[in-house]
Amino acid sequence: MTVDDPGGRPGRDTAAARPRDRPRSRASQSDLERYAGLFAERTRNMRSSAMRDLMALTQRPEVISLAGGLPDTTLFPAEELAKHLSVVAAEAGARALQYAPTEGLSEVKRAIREVLRAEGDDADPEDVLVTTGGQQVIDLVCKTLVNPGDVVVAEAPTYPGAVPAFAAYEADVVQIAMDADGLRVDALEERLDALGAEGRSPKFIYTIPNFQNPAGVTLSLPRRRRLVEVARERELLILEDNPYGLLRFEGAPLPTLRSLDGGEFVISLGTFSKILSPGLRLGWAVAPRPVLSKMNIGKAASDLNSSSLTQLFVATFFRDGDWRGYVAKQCALYRARRDVMLASLEEHFPPGATWTRPEGGLFLWVTLPDGLDTTDLLAKALSRNVAFVPGRAAYLDGRGGASLRLNFSGVGEDDIREGVRRIGAVVHEQIELLDRLTGRRPAAPAPAEALSPAPDPTLADVLELRRRAPDPRRPQRGSSSP
Amino acid sequence: MTVDDPGGRPGRDTAAARPRDRPRSRASQSDLERYAGLFAERTRNMRSSAMRDLMALTQRPEVISLAGGLPDTTLFPAEELAKHLSVVAAEAGARALQYAPTEGLSEVKRAIREVLRAEGDDADPEDVLVTTGGQQVIDLVCKTLVNPGDVVVAEAPTYPGAVPAFAAYEADVVQIAMDADGLRVDALEERLDALGAEGRSPKFIYTIPNFQNPAGVTLSLPRRRRLVEVARERELLILEDNPYGLLRFEGAPLPTLRSLDGGEFVISLGTFSKILSPGLRLGWAVAPRPVLSKMNIGKAASDLNSSSLTQLFVATFFRDGDWRGYVAKQCALYRARRDVMLASLEEHFPPGATWTRPEGGLFLWVTLPDGLDTTDLLAKALSRNVAFVPGRAAYLDGRGGASLRLNFSGVGEDDIREGVRRIGAVVHEQIELLDRLTGRRPAAPAPAEALSPAPDPTLADVLELRRRAPDPRRPQRGSSSP
Repeated sequence: MTVDDPGGRPGRDTAAARPRDRPRSRASQSDLERYAGLFAERTRNMRSSAMRDLMALTQRPEVISLAGGLPDTTLFPAEELAKHLSVVAAEAGARALQYAPTEGLSEVKRAIREVLRAEGDDADPEDVLVTTGGQQVIDLVCKTLVNPGDVVVAEAPTYPGAVPAFAAYEADVVQIAMDADGLRVDALEERLDALGAEGRSPKFIYTIPNFQNPAGVTLSLPRRRRLVEVARERELLILEDNPYGLLRFEGAPLPTLRSLDGGEFVISLGTFSKILSPGLRLGWAVAPRPVLSKMNIGKAASDLNSSSLTQLFVATFFRDGDWRGYVAKQCALYRARRDVMLASLEEHFPPGATWTRPEGGLFLWVTLPDGLDTTDLLAKALSRNVAFVPGRAAYLDGRGGASLRLNFSGVGEDDIREGVRRIGAVVHEQIELLDRLTGRRPAAPAPAEALSPAPDPTLADVLELRRRAPDPRRPQRGSSSP
Repeated sequence: MTVDDPGGRPGRDTAAARPRDRPRSRASQSDLERYAGLFAERTRNMRSSAMRDLMALTQRPEVISLAGGLPDTTLFPAEELAKHLSVVAAEAGARALQYAPTEGLSEVKRAIREVLRAEGDDADPEDVLVTTGGQQVIDLVCKTLVNPGDVVVAEAPTYPGAVPAFAAYEADVVQIAMDADGLRVDALEERLDALGAEGRSPKFIYTIPNFQNPAGVTLSLPRRRRLVEVARERELLILEDNPYGLLRFEGAPLPTLRSLDGGEFVISLGTFSKILSPGLRLGWAVAPRPVLSKMNIGKAASDLNSSSLTQLFVATFFRDGDWRGYVAKQCALYRARRDVMLASLEEHFPPGATWTRPEGGLFLWVTLPDGLDTTDLLAKALSRNVAFVPGRAAYLDGRGGASLRLNFSGVGEDDIREGVRRIGAVVHEQIELLDRLTGRRPAAPAPAEALSPAPDPTLADVLELRRRAPDPRRPQRGSSSP
């Protein structure tokens, strides 16, 4: 999965002599040099995201992975899956196996409309483009709007999977601080002013308003209103990424950005991945017609259309099954797992570590005491068979080193307890090592570089973070031998 | 589906006054102006391909579509589809609904290996990337290799669906003539020399060696050998697009480019779309490891991974079903349809029209007498409820106006007869109109602009074309009233 995979493939000088039956499977250094000159500029920043590289390791059965963003698909009964698939085969087998229009099948657009309405939104089916997962929406929006060097605004931290997408289009990503109420729209406006003074304007503002990935915070209603006003005043497009909106465990639902006044500047990204199944690879965009039209052309060039079989499965499940009931079952399960994770963090993480308390979604965001580096920690954690996403994966500028993302939806409660315990143990060891090396012991939380720009540490105060008083039983600094 | 969709959506000046319940579904001209400045440079050439625009029209049930590249999925028994899907649900339901690794599931890579071996090729599973249809391979190869302005070599004519993909990466596409033996490698070498003299070298050579889309011709063995030699000598990558290789009706199979000496410079594109089902959206790339690694990162950014459900269906079908038997059934069906189409062309098309006689695949390529324009003809044909792909869709430089692509796999024999009859009638009418307007009547075949560059008309002679002597019963020019 990495470019620097060593191997025995013959280099340029020996290629001619390669026997016919010799496997051509490994890349040598000379191969890398041979191909390096051929790669497009955009590949310079296209590195495998930390999450993707982790996938290989986290798939080892002995690893407790709190890294991925996996819903628990074991919740969906196999008999029900078989039943709906049989209906698809009987009612529309040949269509399920055939090409579909690029924009998507009308039946699945009806299902999408039900989801939109459940969130207090709505859309004309002609304003909807069915996509190969929500990820493709990010790709197509970039494809439609972004020239190399164009500014895209994102949250700090942002969805780690968006990072390689932005990189592939050579966007200049400006990340704006968040706090407990989500994106700081005042900081956004300041930055837009500063950009405007340079004659620059972002191509779009990328935001995840509900249970943000990775921070777990939710954009407040006043800020939602202000954000769409800003978009309208400045005629800026917003990409509203909303995979988790219906996975709310508590608190009142908030309106989507698109449904507010000013919402005509919003491109809405939705997906069946988190409310039903990511294995279907089905998401959607709702966008202003001229933008959607370009995205449609971009999609045809990318993959012609999304799977007819999985589209018809969704349509059948929404018609015959109880999709709202399935969402409710997931909410109950993930809520309990979130609570177990919060309690485990309380038990196993050191004083000075802080974390968010999401009202829904899949993730929470932990920030460790200053001086610790979660990228280093990950290697150690993997050796203990536990995985998380290091915070740097959520930044394009190297920040995030003190933070990590934890997922509470993908594994059971016992694994959450054990996984958090193992990570906590590694954190404690690292702190003790740091004590020995530096003679100091970090007790205060790190500057909130993870949820605000480094120059502005006061923002840490407004974060809804879970702080613990120092543990009196913990040994004082310098007490252990070097 | 087009950007210039007229409508009543309020423009910039009235947006603030839009009532909340008013649908935001139509784009006015002022909207187009509003958004035009936001679009990326690459969108200038991203136009909806002719094929895609046709999809909407050809889906009307009364239209006989000879336009699409549709396999006949009614051939796959619904009970068998239901059976294999039930096995997937029972054996691997939760996995089918879950994310998969970007590179693809190992089970489906086994199926891919079976296909490769059936074509006399093979690959280490680690050299295979599972993709969202073959189209995504074209997209990812461009993403990995092409900077704006980079040269890509393609055949003349080339796959119409590749045109918007090349356009999205702002490639400078150089199309090289074909004849009855496929790509003219001598013409390629001349062009490479000319490009080299300008200090330019193509990022890759895109070729469809078997039953080329749209031309229907097959690259001969000596040319295959020479092509990979050229690639090795000049260290150029080839993208070998091979969706139809196993759909051979007659004649001896030829080795893939990748399996020949020099094949280490070949990126191989395969797909389950034509041998099994396009509705699954599953294809694959086999590529040199450093290139594949970049493509994998590009894929993660584009859509994370391909559908687990459809991957597991393929794996189950290849394990439990008779995939070779299904390919054989398709071959028998399409062979008979091809023969009906050839006979119908003979019966209904005018003297001077020529067409190819493919030994397999889905398409044949018709070139009409000089002076006719198939883009004009299409509008007329659609009014008679019949569709084809106009030749211009297969060129990036406006050529192809005298040609059209016909598909013989997607509809039954009666529809082929009737469809060809209707197109033939439209062609005859157009010839008569031309006679009246110009006082001349085209009897000679057009210069083979469709299969060779316009300045080189002698190439028409080497084409394996079906020529008809002028029909003595046909009225002489000028005989009908103006």
